[in-house]
Amino acid sequence: MDKLPLEMAEQSYNKLTSITLNHLESLVGKDFISVDKEQFEKYGRDETEDLVFFPDVVVKPQTVEQISKILKHCNEQKIPVTTRGAGTGLSGGALPIKGGVLLSMEKFNKILSIDTRNLQATVEPGVINYIFQEEVKKLGLFYPPDPASWGSCSLGGNIAHSSGGPKAVKYGTTRDYVLNLEVVLPSGEIIWTGANTLKYSTGYNLTHLFVGSEGTLGVVTKIVFKLIPLPKFDMLMLVPFNSAEKACEAVGEVFKAGITPSAMEFMERDAINWSIKYAGEVNFAIKPEWEALLLVEVDGNNMDVLYSDCEIISNIMQQHECDEILFADTADQKASLWKIRRKVGEAVKSNSVYKEEDTVVMRAELPKLLRGVKDIGKKYGFSSVCYGHAGDGNLHVNIIKGELSDEVWNNALPKGITEIFELCKSLGGTISGEHGIGLVQQKYMSIIFPPHQLQLMRDIKKVFDPNSILNPGKIFG
Amino acid sequence: MDKLPLEMAEQSYNKLTSITLNHLESLVGKDFISVDKEQFEKYGRDETEDLVFFPDVVVKPQTVEQISKILKHCNEQKIPVTTRGAGTGLSGGALPIKGGVLLSMEKFNKILSIDTRNLQATVEPGVINYIFQEEVKKLGLFYPPDPASWGSCSLGGNIAHSSGGPKAVKYGTTRDYVLNLEVVLPSGEIIWTGANTLKYSTGYNLTHLFVGSEGTLGVVTKIVFKLIPLPKFDMLMLVPFNSAEKACEAVGEVFKAGITPSAMEFMERDAINWSIKYAGEVNFAIKPEWEALLLVEVDGNNMDVLYSDCEIISNIMQQHECDEILFADTADQKASLWKIRRKVGEAVKSNSVYKEEDTVVMRAELPKLLRGVKDIGKKYGFSSVCYGHAGDGNLHVNIIKGELSDEVWNNALPKGITEIFELCKSLGGTISGEHGIGLVQQKYMSIIFPPHQLQLMRDIKKVFDPNSILNPGKIFG
Repeated sequence: MDKLPLEMAEQSYNKLTSITLNHLESLVGKDFISVDKEQFEKYGRDETEDLVFFPDVVVKPQTVEQISKILKHCNEQKIPVTTRGAGTGLSGGALPIKGGVLLSMEKFNKILSIDTRNLQATVEPGVINYIFQEEVKKLGLFYPPDPASWGSCSLGGNIAHSSGGPKAVKYGTTRDYVLNLEVVLPSGEIIWTGANTLKYSTGYNLTHLFVGSEGTLGVVTKIVFKLIPLPKFDMLMLVPFNSAEKACEAVGEVFKAGITPSAMEFMERDAINWSIKYAGEVNFAIKPEWEALLLVEVDGNNMDVLYSDCEIISNIMQQHECDEILFADTADQKASLWKIRRKVGEAVKSNSVYKEEDTVVMRAELPKLLRGVKDIGKKYGFSSVCYGHAGDGNLHVNIIKGELSDEVWNNALPKGITEIFELCKSLGGTISGEHGIGLVQQKYMSIIFPPHQLQLMRDIKKVFDPNSILNPGKIFG
Repeated sequence: MDKLPLEMAEQSYNKLTSITLNHLESLVGKDFISVDKEQFEKYGRDETEDLVFFPDVVVKPQTVEQISKILKHCNEQKIPVTTRGAGTGLSGGALPIKGGVLLSMEKFNKILSIDTRNLQATVEPGVINYIFQEEVKKLGLFYPPDPASWGSCSLGGNIAHSSGGPKAVKYGTTRDYVLNLEVVLPSGEIIWTGANTLKYSTGYNLTHLFVGSEGTLGVVTKIVFKLIPLPKFDMLMLVPFNSAEKACEAVGEVFKAGITPSAMEFMERDAINWSIKYAGEVNFAIKPEWEALLLVEVDGNNMDVLYSDCEIISNIMQQHECDEILFADTADQKASLWKIRRKVGEAVKSNSVYKEEDTVVMRAELPKLLRGVKDIGKKYGFSSVCYGHAGDGNLHVNIIKGELSDEVWNNALPKGITEIFELCKSLGGTISGEHGIGLVQQKYMSIIFPPHQLQLMRDIKKVFDPNSILNPGKIFG
């Protein structure tokens, strides 16, 4: 555990000169800068394990011009700048591990425009995902990316990792909705990465280079999102299985049948138990023999089509020996089922020290991945709770410390994780589908990329950030 | 016109040493290398105006290892290498303007696998778009990107420009279907840019940096494409308007009504006339008062839904004062209507010296763009034939030389084009939606990007290609 003692805050504080602190205060105003230890405790964490690192100062800019001046100054003085959204990240991407300036984007919280003529919206990066979704819904529009943390995560954070969520299986991830970005570079220069158009072939695709770059290339200050028409109806079913592998096998068959559900979520038995314990009772019996559940949603504008899709899906599930399928009949029932799924992560985390791996493979290889994760766990002596976006081949593997010795946790576990990621690679996959690399996954990057490819990425960073001030120590170490 | 005399071939030939030529021959075999002038005539052109530039040698590698060795040698010797797909580009991207090696990918023409379990395919870049589409169709799968040149363009060329086509309005462009790329770098190193997964958040997004990079960063040798289930049905309608602007206005209303057609194509009167003259008669009367046509397709798995969509679309069209709508009842009728649309480009080009601009704006701004193009044409004394993908705001503006003086063509026209592109920018758009920048559009890049942003792109190129051997002189000049 890399928790720093509080005293570190005072030490690091001294690293910034009073000239810099005064300059930053003159830029953002005294109400928007803090060297307070309590603030450091808050802004030094995200949702990654229990890590905390203190910045030297927390700054809350309100305008793009302020950010431009802050970066220019920090670039000249080689002061680290870590941009922070809502702090819900799961790979330590927002942790200010080298101290310096913590640039909180919380004041960039405005939806600037929703253009119903062109089906697009311009927003600031600090807007909370769910708030944006609700606002566009009022106009009959739809912004699909919906990470489990949608109620608290920011759209800028979603850009940093190209976040997904349950709807990604039908509608794609954040990447697929970003048309254009306003970005401040370390030099202080402000650029728009592309155009507000659905098609684009005008030089290098800077927009999609920034999406997923985890705050290491620039600071996003405005986002132009594509929107789509809101589907009118949806149907949700919960499908229990006595075999987790059979559940995973059924997933692939649905897509082969030509149906693309709007969600296809997988939960192991343990995940369900913990979620229910954490989030409250459900109004149906969980049978002891159930080993896994699939939560399957279809959406569209025609109920007959949805009924027909559900019938085809039900048949496939039955061919894979599911137990009785539960259809959510009311909005309340739907919300209750979704709550179980959305709270799994929090539930598992509230229960024990843990490590979460964001494994992703080709969809049809999911049964092999699940079996492999369990086998590797047995070999190294750890247990895991698995759940995630089965339709995308994206399985969140939560490894539980529980009663494990520190010896196993610190030494055997990294070997086990390495084997899990090697398995991912062999199944056409990689080490992160939607959480990013940030701090905690970087030691595994060499499983996926040869040294010259990692060097290429480092060299790209240098083009944008020659002094390495932006989120230093992330992705590549 | 930049046509070079044939003698240039011999001159430039001498630029490569016999050591290099012998080495290249030893790598690819004597049947796959040529310094023949007739070959230079063929491989020195694409479909951009009537430009021709001779390479020093045409090389047709058959394996990735050969390409690795060719690039390594050329990188060491600083010999230009221009990668060529099928030569159907419209911005001069494949023209070997600095001589050197013309690397034809025509032998990379195999579909390596179509994975029906995971709905993805691995192909070589020389595969022709239409052949790939037909092969996946046989398995009930769908690869949507369909440029007008689909019968002859290569998938590698589509990657180079992130090509679109009529289906892009519902299904996206090439970019949206590329999961992973095998690429040879100028150093000779072979990398995979990402993973074969639907979600990806593992370091910088190199895959989508390569898509649209026009052969300036590396040579793509394998492509992993995402596929989707093939829609079972489609319906096609031709909607005539007496006002081109009314037609454009109707386009936006369809999307606002919550319908996303699988094609929404626009053709001006002149475009139709020329296409029919070029491609043959149609079995319906073209009324003299028609000023524009929309070709609208919907697709899906349920005919009732398609009928309902068509009814809603018809109502919107009528509200915008269309003439009688023609529904294509048979496969032949559909093919005949699509032929008119697909042949417009060729037809216009067969008729006169021309320049084609690939303008793109936010969809609802299309009427303003069309009006602006005509007004600017009047101001500078040129006429244009406009057609394209109205649903994407992507209008191909074909400027016709006809009887224009060379004075107007060479001096007034660039000013007019500059104004058209400035208009695009002011309407949220840019200077290329799907054709790329290549050779002929680079002088307009400064309309869109400030100097420091162009420099960023040049610096990215340097990371991959420090000696600037790959497609030199393209995109940035």
